[in-house]
Amino acid sequence: MGAMARVAPLSGFPEWSPSGRVVEASMIASLREVFGLHGFAEIETRAVEPVTRLAGDSEASKEIYALTRLAAEEGGDAKLGLHFDLTVPFARYVEEFAPQLAFPFRRYQIQKVWRGERPQEGRSREFYQADIDIVARETLPAHLEAEVVIVAARALAALPVPKATIHINNRRLVEGFYRSVGISDVPGALRSVDKLDKIGADGVRAELVEQGVSDAASDAVLELAKINSADAAFVDAVDDLWQTTATNGDAEAETQFSAGVAELAALISAVNTAVPGTAVADLRIARGLDYYTGAVFETTIEGHEDLGAICSGGRYDSLVAGGGFPGVGISIGLTRLLSRLLGGGSLSGSRAVPSAVLVAVTDEETRDASNALADALRARGIPAEVAPSAAKFGKQIQHAERRGIPFVWFPDTGEVKDIRSGTQVPADPRNWEPPAEDRWPRTVRA
Amino acid sequence: MGAMARVAPLSGFPEWSPSGRVVEASMIASLREVFGLHGFAEIETRAVEPVTRLAGDSEASKEIYALTRLAAEEGGDAKLGLHFDLTVPFARYVEEFAPQLAFPFRRYQIQKVWRGERPQEGRSREFYQADIDIVARETLPAHLEAEVVIVAARALAALPVPKATIHINNRRLVEGFYRSVGISDVPGALRSVDKLDKIGADGVRAELVEQGVSDAASDAVLELAKINSADAAFVDAVDDLWQTTATNGDAEAETQFSAGVAELAALISAVNTAVPGTAVADLRIARGLDYYTGAVFETTIEGHEDLGAICSGGRYDSLVAGGGFPGVGISIGLTRLLSRLLGGGSLSGSRAVPSAVLVAVTDEETRDASNALADALRARGIPAEVAPSAAKFGKQIQHAERRGIPFVWFPDTGEVKDIRSGTQVPADPRNWEPPAEDRWPRTVRA
Repeated sequence: MGAMARVAPLSGFPEWSPSGRVVEASMIASLREVFGLHGFAEIETRAVEPVTRLAGDSEASKEIYALTRLAAEEGGDAKLGLHFDLTVPFARYVEEFAPQLAFPFRRYQIQKVWRGERPQEGRSREFYQADIDIVARETLPAHLEAEVVIVAARALAALPVPKATIHINNRRLVEGFYRSVGISDVPGALRSVDKLDKIGADGVRAELVEQGVSDAASDAVLELAKINSADAAFVDAVDDLWQTTATNGDAEAETQFSAGVAELAALISAVNTAVPGTAVADLRIARGLDYYTGAVFETTIEGHEDLGAICSGGRYDSLVAGGGFPGVGISIGLTRLLSRLLGGGSLSGSRAVPSAVLVAVTDEETRDASNALADALRARGIPAEVAPSAAKFGKQIQHAERRGIPFVWFPDTGEVKDIRSGTQVPADPRNWEPPAEDRWPRTVRA
Repeated sequence: MGAMARVAPLSGFPEWSPSGRVVEASMIASLREVFGLHGFAEIETRAVEPVTRLAGDSEASKEIYALTRLAAEEGGDAKLGLHFDLTVPFARYVEEFAPQLAFPFRRYQIQKVWRGERPQEGRSREFYQADIDIVARETLPAHLEAEVVIVAARALAALPVPKATIHINNRRLVEGFYRSVGISDVPGALRSVDKLDKIGADGVRAELVEQGVSDAASDAVLELAKINSADAAFVDAVDDLWQTTATNGDAEAETQFSAGVAELAALISAVNTAVPGTAVADLRIARGLDYYTGAVFETTIEGHEDLGAICSGGRYDSLVAGGGFPGVGISIGLTRLLSRLLGGGSLSGSRAVPSAVLVAVTDEETRDASNALADALRARGIPAEVAPSAAKFGKQIQHAERRGIPFVWFPDTGEVKDIRSGTQVPADPRNWEPPAEDRWPRTVRA
C-alpha cells in the first residue's frame, strides 16, 4: 500500500467519490427527464473534431487539446482535437445528419468537454456541459426562444441547487443603441463590456477609448449596462437613456433598437409567466461570442454569484459557417455547479453504494439461500448485495454500516433490521418494501 | 446548404442518429439498472491519464492518443493520453480513493475509451465500454468471481441482443497443464493460443515451435484447446488428456492444474445455476493479457460469432502495479454490439423524438393554452411538444408524422388523435394516459 500516497489528483480534471457520483448521476437524470418531457431529443457526438473546425476566434478555441497517435508515422493522421464545447460538434452534426432530422430540431446533449486552460475554481480542463438548442431550417419564431429559456429555468429549478436567476439582454437592442451613439466596432465594444465584472467600469472605459469610442459614447454604454429590471420597467429606462444619448439620427439603428427592446420585454414576460421570478432584463449582459444576434442569457445562482455564469446562451442566425439553421441554445455548466456544491459540502450522496439491503450469510453452506433472497428483492427493483463472508452477524452489520446500507436481512430468522434505528421485524422478500427514500441512493442537501 | 455534402463521418468514430441514440441510451439505462440492483456503485474517471501510466505491453497501449495543448509553450505540460480501457483508470482510482472506499469494492463504469488503431468492423477508435469489477483488500473469495460473471450474464440477458454464451477457462488449469508438458514460457504460449481464431492451428503450432516448444507439447496444447462443455463433462476430458500428455512429473504443476480444474467446474456450475444455459467451459480461451491469474472469460452472441468477443475479463491477483487489490472484472463492448445491431438494422428506436404528444396550435393567439395543455401532460410525466406554427391541422398532423409522434392533441375540441389508427377521442390532460409502450421512445427489434 506504500504506493498509494504517490497517486495525486490531476489539477483541472475533477473526479468524484462514489457518493459524489450519486449526486452527479442524479443531476444528469433530472436534466434528461426535464429535457425529454419538453420534446428535446438526445444526441451524443464523438469527442473529437478536425482541428480546422475547432479553431476560431473564441477564447475557448485557443485552448484546444490536439491528439496525436503515439504510434503514428509522421504526418499519417488528420489533425484532430477534443471538442471544447458542444456547439461546434452540434453544428457539424446538424450538417451531417440533416436529411434524418425533423426541423425545428430540438436537441439536448450532456457530455464532457475539454479546455487546456489554467485550472482555477469554476474552471476545469475537463467538465460536463448540458446543452439544449432548437434549430430551424428557415426562420426561428420568437416562441422557440422563450421555450429554450423556460426549459433551462425548469431544468435548473429541478436540480438541488440554489435559486437561479437568468439575466437576459438583446443584441439588437444593444447594437442599435451602440450605433446610435456613433460606435462603429460593435463587436469590439461588446467584448469590452463583457469584461465589466473583471476589469470594472474604468477598465471598460479605457478599452472603449482605445477603440476610438468618444467619452460621451462610453458614458452612454456604461449607463446602459446599469439598467436592469425583473419586469418591463427597463423599457422606460432604456427609452429615457436613448432620448438623452442618441446622437446620429441613424434610423436603421433606431429600428434595430426598438425591435430589440420589444423582443426583450416579450421574452422576460413569457419566461416569468411560465416560471415566475426567474428572468431579469439585464442590459449589462454582453457575451463575448460574435455569433449571437438576438437574446443573450447568463445565469447566476443565489449565494454563489461569485461563481459566475452557470448557464449561458443566446439566439443565433446561423449555426453553420456557410449560413443557415437559425437557432437558440443554452448551456448548463454542470461540473462548475458540482465542483462548488459537492466540493463545498452543500450536497452529498445519501450512501456510496446502491444496495438498500445487505443480505447476511449465516454460514457458507447456506450462501445460496442468501443469494436467492437477494435475487427476490432485485426482481422487485430493490438493490441488494450479499455479505462477502459468513462472519459473526455483528461484523456483518458493521460491514453494512461502513457502506451506508440501511437494512440487513437475516435469512435464518427471516427478519430485517433497520440498522439506523435498530428496529428488527419479520419480513417476506416477496412483499417487503424499503421506504421510498431508501430504495436508491439520493442527493442530500447539507 | 451547399456545404452539407462536404461533412463526412470520421472513420472509427461512430455517431448515431437521434433514434439510434434512443437505443444506445436505453441499453446504458438497462446496464445501470442491473449493475445497481446487484450493489455495484458507479464511478466515472477523467478521460486522461499520464502517458507513463498508460504505456505497457498490451496491444491497446500501443495505440494511445496523446494530448498536446495547441497553445502550450514547449514542454510545459505533463504528458497526458486518453485512456484506452477502463481498467487502467480504475486501478489508479482505487489507489487514489482507497481511504473513501469500502472493500470488497464493487464498481461499474460506463464510459468511452479511445484507441488509435485501424478502424474496421467491430473496432472503433472511440467506443463505449461497460465494466464491472469487484476488488478486495486482501483475498477475493471464489463466490465474488461467480458473482461478476452472473451479473454480466444478467446484464446481457436484459439487453435487446441475441443470446450470449460466456466461454470460460482458467489460467491455473492452463498453466499447470503447459508446465506439465515442459513449456517454460507460459505467457508466450498463451499469446500464441490466443490467436487460434486468426491464424488457425497450424499457425499456432508454428509459433509454438519457434518458441522452442516440442512437437508433442504443441500437440497437447492444441488438443487441450479443443475441449469444451456446457457442464462438468470437460473435467474427464482434460483429466484423460493429462494422463496421456503430462511428461515431467512436476508436482507443483499438477497441484496448479487440479486446482484450476476444480475452480472452473465450480464456476461453470454456479453461473449455470443462476443463469441457466449461459456458461461453457472452453479450454481454448487464452486472453492475451498477462495479469489474469484465475478464471478468464470471453462472450459471443448467437448469430454474430464473427463479431468476436463482446464481453471479456478475468480474475487478477493485483489491480495495481505495486501489488495488492486482488479482483475480478468483465467488460461489455457496448459500441461493438451497437455498431452491429444498429448498423445492421436489427435494432432501432421507436421514434426520433421523446414527445408522445404534439399539442396542436389553433391560432397564435391561443398558443398559451396549447402550452398550458402540454405542461399539464408533462407534469404527469408524459413528454409533449407544442406545434411550431398555427398551420392547418392537416399540416400539423404531418409534422407529427414526420417526427414519429403518435398522438396529436387538439385544444379547440379537447380531443386527442392516434395518428396511426386515426382514432380521435375526447380527452382530459389531467387523466389521459398514452399506452405504456408509447410514453417514451423505446428500442424496437426488426
